[in-house]
Parts: sequence; C-alpha cells; structure tokens
Amino acid sequence: MAGHVTSSAYGLHRVVEPAGVLPQQAWRLSSDPRLSPDEVLVDVSRLNLDAASYRQLREQHGSPEAVRRAVLEIVETRGKMHNPVTGSGGMLLGTVREVGPESPLGLRVGDRIATLVSLTLTPLRIEDGLADWSGEGEQVPCRGTAVLFGRSIAATLPADLPEELALSVLDVCGAPALTDRVVRSAGPAPSVLVLGGGGKSGSLSLAAARRAGAERLVALVPTEREADDVLSAGLADEVVIADARDPLAVADAVGTPVDVTVVCVDVPGCEHGAVLATADGGTIVFFSMATSFPAAALGAEGLAADVRMLIGNGYVPGHAEFAIDLIRSEPGVRELFERRERHTSRT
Amino acid sequence: MAGHVTSSAYGLHRVVEPAGVLPQQAWRLSSDPRLSPDEVLVDVSRLNLDAASYRQLREQHGSPEAVRRAVLEIVETRGKMHNPVTGSGGMLLGTVREVGPESPLGLRVGDRIATLVSLTLTPLRIEDGLADWSGEGEQVPCRGTAVLFGRSIAATLPADLPEELALSVLDVCGAPALTDRVVRSAGPAPSVLVLGGGGKSGSLSLAAARRAGAERLVALVPTEREADDVLSAGLADEVVIADARDPLAVADAVGTPVDVTVVCVDVPGCEHGAVLATADGGTIVFFSMATSFPAAALGAEGLAADVRMLIGNGYVPGHAEFAIDLIRSEPGVRELFERRERHTSRT
Repeated sequence: MAGHVTSSAYGLHRVVEPAGVLPQQAWRLSSDPRLSPDEVLVDVSRLNLDAASYRQLREQHGSPEAVRRAVLEIVETRGKMHNPVTGSGGMLLGTVREVGPESPLGLRVGDRIATLVSLTLTPLRIEDGLADWSGEGEQVPCRGTAVLFGRSIAATLPADLPEELALSVLDVCGAPALTDRVVRSAGPAPSVLVLGGGGKSGSLSLAAARRAGAERLVALVPTEREADDVLSAGLADEVVIADARDPLAVADAVGTPVDVTVVCVDVPGCEHGAVLATADGGTIVFFSMATSFPAAALGAEGLAADVRMLIGNGYVPGHAEFAIDLIRSEPGVRELFERRERHTSRT
Repeated sequence: MAGHVTSSAYGLHRVVEPAGVLPQQAWRLSSDPRLSPDEVLVDVSRLNLDAASYRQLREQHGSPEAVRRAVLEIVETRGKMHNPVTGSGGMLLGTVREVGPESPLGLRVGDRIATLVSLTLTPLRIEDGLADWSGEGEQVPCRGTAVLFGRSIAATLPADLPEELALSVLDVCGAPALTDRVVRSAGPAPSVLVLGGGGKSGSLSLAAARRAGAERLVALVPTEREADDVLSAGLADEVVIADARDPLAVADAVGTPVDVTVVCVDVPGCEHGAVLATADGGTIVFFSMATSFPAAALGAEGLAADVRMLIGNGYVPGHAEFAIDLIRSEPGVRELFERRERHTSRT
C-alpha cells in the first residue's frame, strides 16, 4: 500500500477556477509552460478528440471551420480540451520537451508519448491556431504544449509499431491488464466469457484471458462477420452470436455459466445478460462506459445472483506495456485490429 | 459454482408482454395465484412503496385519492407494482399461504415474511381495492396475493424485533454482508472507511467491518449531530466530518488512505473522494444507487489510482440473517436505528 501523495501530484496548483477542486472538475486550468518540480512539459503534435465530443461539436457548430474555432475557444477559455457539453476530452500525442527534477514518470527529453489520462485534466496551450486542421475528423494536428503531473499517465510510443495501431491499442489498454488480474485470481483454469469479443478491448481481453490460463474461452459477438473474424484469429475456443442486450439470448448462447465475464460491448443494456451468463461465485468486469450502475446492482439482486461485479478501472500499473506486448506477440489480435481499421467499423 | 438454473426459477413463465424478457423488464406479468411447482404464494398485508416512486406519483396525480387510484391501476395493468416513470417498486410484507413442492426458498405456510426482491418483478394481485389506504405515505395496507419464484429472496420476520425496525434493517441488508466479505479478504487487520457511517447501511457496515477484523475504523459523516450519534454508539474508532462530495475535503479528513472504503452516501458525486481516500491496492465498495459508473471509472483512471471498485450487489447469501443478527447483538447499531426513527431523518 502506498502512503500519502502530495496534492500537487494531482495538479491542484494548476486549478484556477473554482478553487479547491480537482483538475478534471475545474472550469479552468493554468496551462503555463513553467513547470513545478514534479511536472513534465510536452510538445504536442496531435490531439485525438473523444468521438462523442467531436460528434457533439459538429452537431452544435455545423461547418468544419466553426468546429475548429470552437475547439480553439474551448482550449483558450478552459486551459484544457474539455467539452463543456459532453464532459469528455480525448488524448494527445507529443514529444517530451522538459522533465522536472522530481517527476516520477520515468520520461526522458525526446521521448515520443501518448497521454493515457483524459484531456479533461491536462493543461493545454495551442500555439498554431490549429492552422493545419480543417476541422474534419477527430484527429487534430496541433502545435502547442501540454503539462503532465506527477500522477499523470503517459506511454512511450513503441518504435516498431505504426503510430495509428499503437494509439488504437493504448486507447483501451486498461481492459486486458485488469482481465489478466481477474482471471489469474479466479482459481485454476477458469472459464471466461467476453461480451463483444470482436472489438478492440474485447479482442485484447480474450488474448489476455488466454494467457492468464483461461480454460474455456467464449467470445460473444453480434454478427456472423465478427464471429468469422474472431474464429479465424484463433482468439477463442467458442464464438457465439447473440444480441448482448437480450439476457435470455446471451444465457442460451453461452450455455453453462462461466467463472469470469468481461463486458466490452459499448451499448447500454448488457448488465442482465452478463449476470445470467456468470456462475454463482463468479466475477463480472464491466469495461463499457455504457454500463448502468443501478441496472447492474438491482439486476444481480433481482436474479439472486451471488456475483462479484467490478467497475473497469482504466488504470492498472503496467497496462500500456502489457497491451503493446499482446499486440506484438499475438498475431491474431493484431490481425483483428488491422482488419477493423480496413473495415472502418465501429470500435 | 452452481450449474444451470431452470428458466422458470426467474419467473419467465409469468411474463405476458413482451414475450421473452425477464420479469423486471416485462410490461405485464401474470399474477394468477395458481402456482408452478417451485413458486410460493403470499397473502399480502402491506406494500412498502419505493420513496422515489411515491414522490413521483404524488407529483403527477396531486391528491392522495388520485394516488391511490393510480397504484391500483398500475397493479391492475401490469400485474406488479412497477412505476412506469421511475422504474422502481418497493417491497412487501405478508404471510406464506402456499408453498410449491419444489420451492427451494425454505419457507413454511404461516411464515411472516418480507420480500427482498423488488416489487418490479413480483406478480401481485390486489383484492381489497386498497380500501384501507388513504393514499398518504409509502406504507400501503393491502389485502391480496403475491408470487415468489424459485430465485426470489424473502426473509422471515424475526419475532423478537419490532416490525418497523426489522424492515428498516432488511431494506439495506446487502451492505453489511458484502462489507463483511470484502474486509475479511483484505488481509490482516485492514483499515476501513465508511462514507455515510451514520446512516442505515453505513452503521450496519461499520458494525460488520468491526466484526470482520477491521483495525482502524473511520466513519465520515456530514454533520456534528451524526458524528455525536456514531461516536456515542461506539461504532467507529474515528469519526470525521466532511462533505462526501468534496474529494479534497474527504482526503484531508481521512488522512492516511485506507485499505477498504465503503460508500453509503445516497447523493451523487462521492466517487472521487472515495478514490482519493483509498490506498493503492485497496478496494472501494459502492452501495449508493447514486453512484455514477463513468465517474468512478474515469475518476480512478484520471488519478492513476490502482483501486479495485465493486458494484454493491444487493444480494449475498445469508444477508438478511446476518443483518438481523447485527442489530440483535450490537446495541450501538440498534441505538442508531431507533434514534433515526425518532429523528425522522433521511435514510
């Protein structure tokens, strides 16, 4: 167990308004590039806007040019790219320019990195007026600076992987790391089900579960095409097709309930199916941000199901390295990621 | 691990509309008092409406008499007391009239019981037109019948406790049972924090944590009065006063982070405080229905906190007996419950 952490490690000294809240809750941060001793300064090269945030900005502002101006104005006003309507941000890519003498992050000047904490808590200053961005799409070429705190998380981009692929993997890297931990603690040779096994976090979780010793490994996917993809990638022992929002269809498709269920389907209403598919004494890990807390809690109670339900914490120490290692060493996962990029399917 | 459960144990055969969903999701259930072999028939004496549901009905319908008619019409239309606006139900009190030969619930004819699954999935027929109810308040005297499934949960009311007190305890009995389990698995003599330690689920969780071997036991409460109550009941080693929605105030008040945090505060916005107050490697159990899944998941990630976060499942085998035993054997808890009834404070 760690002891106390100084409050500046959370970036409290960067909060301008209102006083006394955490950076994520703040309306405005200071993006001053002069560092505290435990901070890191990054030369930003690209912002990766959260999909929900970009969609909202397009709907509100209409033209790409108006979206471009809106992003500039948000960052100017708030000192961070924190969409005030959706509450979401995204991540950024850049190169380390300066490392404070007390930074615990282990970064070196010149490292090419991606941030793994949200833009909603990352001090950001844009210096090129986003001149290289048309306002189209979530990828925003950008020159400027960002600040990482002592408790921030950033991953060094691997030199041997295409940047797009590495970003795709880092975006969901919490899921395989937590799956690994849960499957290892579930007793010898547990059975594991991944709802949404054909997606990004789902395929990584399948590979992690296999490596952690899962015996019966089941992937549930919505379509024949995804089923074929997962089967041909060799990621699961069984692939079943069902609508994850239909609890009885899920239970029928899975058959004997499993010891561990990992929920990676990004649509609401998958809680009861996960409960029915999981054996008494088993564990469910919810990674989907569409998970409803009351639906999960009341669903398990209503079904008298003695299951342990975990909120998928996006942070597990070593999660970025773990996910990158999976994509390097498991050809089936990489194949699935690259196929998805070609399909431009939803992630 | 249990094997398959027949689908009738979930009451699927009682679903009239739409076909193929679980009873809780159904628009209409059959409340026919003729039983399947694994069902139990209950003579209902009182409905205990969910507070949110009653409030909504009062706001929509105005007069008590109109609320009375609305409840009758919902039960008539849906075959269950499932408020279509709030989605919530409540629980009921009654006496077992008939036990199917294959019922696994262990109930006997004549047992006085409370249901621990929601009215939103309990087939209900009202036979007295709610003639004894004025439409005022959440307690509804009622004659009629209800059906329990194989997988339903009901608790026998203890003969040695006032019915009101027993109901209060049973309403939150999942919290102490899960707290017991989590604290026991947290290693030797863990430190435990209960946010909302002065409330019903909070005080039971404090008593459960103490009994499970907690070494440093901290209660966080919002007011001096609650602090005095918890202190004089002897339920915690330390009682601190802070607004649970203010993460920094919570962290300051608690000091050294704890191994286990139990969240029993029924207001939104307590996720980040719980994360900050919990040591790396520790566990948070969220019992509050006001918990936001994304706030918890993104909050822990944004703070790079390696904490395990559990959704408080309201069902743990033996939870009712465990909670009743706590109230019987821990005078401090009972004192707090009875004081709350006198205060008529919020629960």
